[in-house]
Amino acid sequence: MRAVDLIGRKRDRGELTAQELAFLVEGYLDGGVSDGQMAALLMAGVLNGFTEAEALALTRILLDSGESLDLSRLRGPTLDKHSTGGVGDGTTLLVAPLVAAAGGQLVKLSGRGLGHTGGTLDKLESIPGFRTALSPDELLAIVAEVGCAVAAQSERLVPADRALYALRDVTGTVASPALIASSVMSKKLAAGAGTIVLDVKAGDGAFLASIEEVEALAQLCVRIATAAGRRCVALVTAMDEPLGRGIGNALEVAEAVTLLRSAPDAGGRSRLTEVALDLAAHGLALAQGGSVGEVRATLEDHWASGRALERLRAMVAAQGGDPAVCDDPAGILPAAPVRRSAPAPAAGVVTAVPARGVGEIAAALGAGRARKSDDVDPAVGLELAVEVGDLVERDQLLAVVHACTEADAETAARRLADLVHIDGAGGGVAPPAPVLRVVRA
Amino acid sequence: MRAVDLIGRKRDRGELTAQELAFLVEGYLDGGVSDGQMAALLMAGVLNGFTEAEALALTRILLDSGESLDLSRLRGPTLDKHSTGGVGDGTTLLVAPLVAAAGGQLVKLSGRGLGHTGGTLDKLESIPGFRTALSPDELLAIVAEVGCAVAAQSERLVPADRALYALRDVTGTVASPALIASSVMSKKLAAGAGTIVLDVKAGDGAFLASIEEVEALAQLCVRIATAAGRRCVALVTAMDEPLGRGIGNALEVAEAVTLLRSAPDAGGRSRLTEVALDLAAHGLALAQGGSVGEVRATLEDHWASGRALERLRAMVAAQGGDPAVCDDPAGILPAAPVRRSAPAPAAGVVTAVPARGVGEIAAALGAGRARKSDDVDPAVGLELAVEVGDLVERDQLLAVVHACTEADAETAARRLADLVHIDGAGGGVAPPAPVLRVVRA
Repeated sequence: MRAVDLIGRKRDRGELTAQELAFLVEGYLDGGVSDGQMAALLMAGVLNGFTEAEALALTRILLDSGESLDLSRLRGPTLDKHSTGGVGDGTTLLVAPLVAAAGGQLVKLSGRGLGHTGGTLDKLESIPGFRTALSPDELLAIVAEVGCAVAAQSERLVPADRALYALRDVTGTVASPALIASSVMSKKLAAGAGTIVLDVKAGDGAFLASIEEVEALAQLCVRIATAAGRRCVALVTAMDEPLGRGIGNALEVAEAVTLLRSAPDAGGRSRLTEVALDLAAHGLALAQGGSVGEVRATLEDHWASGRALERLRAMVAAQGGDPAVCDDPAGILPAAPVRRSAPAPAAGVVTAVPARGVGEIAAALGAGRARKSDDVDPAVGLELAVEVGDLVERDQLLAVVHACTEADAETAARRLADLVHIDGAGGGVAPPAPVLRVVRA
Repeated sequence: MRAVDLIGRKRDRGELTAQELAFLVEGYLDGGVSDGQMAALLMAGVLNGFTEAEALALTRILLDSGESLDLSRLRGPTLDKHSTGGVGDGTTLLVAPLVAAAGGQLVKLSGRGLGHTGGTLDKLESIPGFRTALSPDELLAIVAEVGCAVAAQSERLVPADRALYALRDVTGTVASPALIASSVMSKKLAAGAGTIVLDVKAGDGAFLASIEEVEALAQLCVRIATAAGRRCVALVTAMDEPLGRGIGNALEVAEAVTLLRSAPDAGGRSRLTEVALDLAAHGLALAQGGSVGEVRATLEDHWASGRALERLRAMVAAQGGDPAVCDDPAGILPAAPVRRSAPAPAAGVVTAVPARGVGEIAAALGAGRARKSDDVDPAVGLELAVEVGDLVERDQLLAVVHACTEADAETAARRLADLVHIDGAGGGVAPPAPVLRVVRA
């Protein structure tokens, strides 16, 4: 078996067997297959597509390259939740305590994501004292006690995925459904939960823009999980505008706490609330039985009664964070030295708040990282004051910018005013539904 | 400018500017662009295609990466000849002395080719004493005196092409018209001749099988040469069966000498003779003026009179080889220890002698190299006794196998009997015309 012949087969639209893919990936890890050969194979796969059989085989190869977490010590159903990533996407901060409040056990391992704002780990680490480096024993003990925990993914899980992702990231070979699905699902399978709920983003701020492509990706992920004997449901959700109003690490924690401190439908139900409730309800219904509607009604009760907030407080405390963040987020979380209003440049109806552009503004403020070794600034970001469908006057607040310097803040405010679409003719625009599709096995 | 963004543009079917391509290739040479990034770019280009503007720019970048040969000291027209490579393709051994006999100056630099049999350098080096490592001064002095010389390409010419080719070779990214054309033409431009004649092979034994693809490649090469101010003509020639009857380094030298010792049409004109005369005639007509037909008639005179053989003898002597090879090739050239007949397994008409398969048999005997560092065995190979259209009896000689061991010879004879198609029904099959198209500027 020669790597160049297998690359040639993929280039010529052929299919590779599980054994051949294992030869290539294992060879890549031990140096027998070069960076150049693996990158050529990946680009051929991105352009010609990988088959479902190849995606299934690749997932298994990535999974088998490292250790897996053994959750058998936990009694009762275990859940995991994954989002393909978007802007203002703090759903884990809501889903985890909701699942715990309803008696589920959410065990989430998270990577140190690249992106416009940090990943879930970065968000939680904006809480003073919060630790995400947990041993498997610590993690399981917290989940058993609290019902949820979020920890950093160990280096010993899916090392082949990490190696491949580092190469894909610099070679323009990220955007392949099979490569995305095998990467995501190998991590979820290694993390051990019996039920997996996926939030697959579609739109301007996501990896893939078209709903059809995203739905196909979601189906592929669900089929991979099912083939591995797990329960899995995927929600395709809209990422054309930011999901929450806080864009930035501490700002997203503050928003989650603020939402959990009110009734779920207080002040008009937010899209972030809707997606979080739907993710938790679909996951719990699959894990524990019951209709999604009934489970969701129960979750709304847990939210309104404060039991979900209480679970978040318990998780923060168990992971070493200051639980007072659940009483006074603004007083506990780090604050940026400069706050500045970004005013609307004209009157009219807000017709678009492009998610990618908002994310880039937040990244420029320091909320995200371009390289894995970069630090994120927990305090900076944007607090949006408007969303699609809102009517605004000239100079009305579009957002509060949280920045390190006056110059950063001014640049961000100007970029935001240029970015947000305001239609002076002023026809009504309905905000889009946040959950677009539900994909089941 | 970031490599990953440029790769993404090519992946998404965009075009790269000359400046962007230079950033990538120069970055690849100095380490700022990784093997993985360059391989991903190359695979994207192989699958999505490079534009003509990209091919022109790439040729210039490869050319400018190293030195060029200055032929201005030579008086009169200079010619260069290149073949994209086939099986039994000893045309240079005929074209070089033909051009010299007609008053042209053929200056050929050759690489250490990979392939089923060696390259022109390997063939000539089967002549005892023959030196191909010539300094530019030596090379030009020999050409000025003899009218032709063949030397090894210096490491200082087109270093970027060598680096890219080494990567393409192991990453399945060889078969791109733009990459082939820019690689070939950068070397031809660096070698300095005013007129370039190309032999672009089509068929089973060539890089590209379809005549249309090969013609497009030939047109691209001619346009690149013309844009660089050179005269260029390309012949598209058939490589479905081996061109000559000798397949192996010394065997091809012996065949060339034997052909030059007879009249060009002795014993029925061979396809090798036809292609060599056409290449030399088209090249000389373009370099010196005159009609191709007239030039070709003159060349046939030089052949029949022995003047061409005399030029080959002078070139061999000037390059340190034993000129007696031109009198008694079998007595001078190295001989394999084992010779064995490969008999026809059945009676009928020979309908195919697949070039690639014949080349693979010769390579297995030791005539070719899989890696640049491998040695070739000058003595081994096949002497074909039949070609397409011949009527054979059962057990009639298909070829003489020249091998290192009896076992090698037996394997080769058996593989050849399986490979050659013999149709017992016995309809007449005309041998295909060797020159398929002529492509001019």
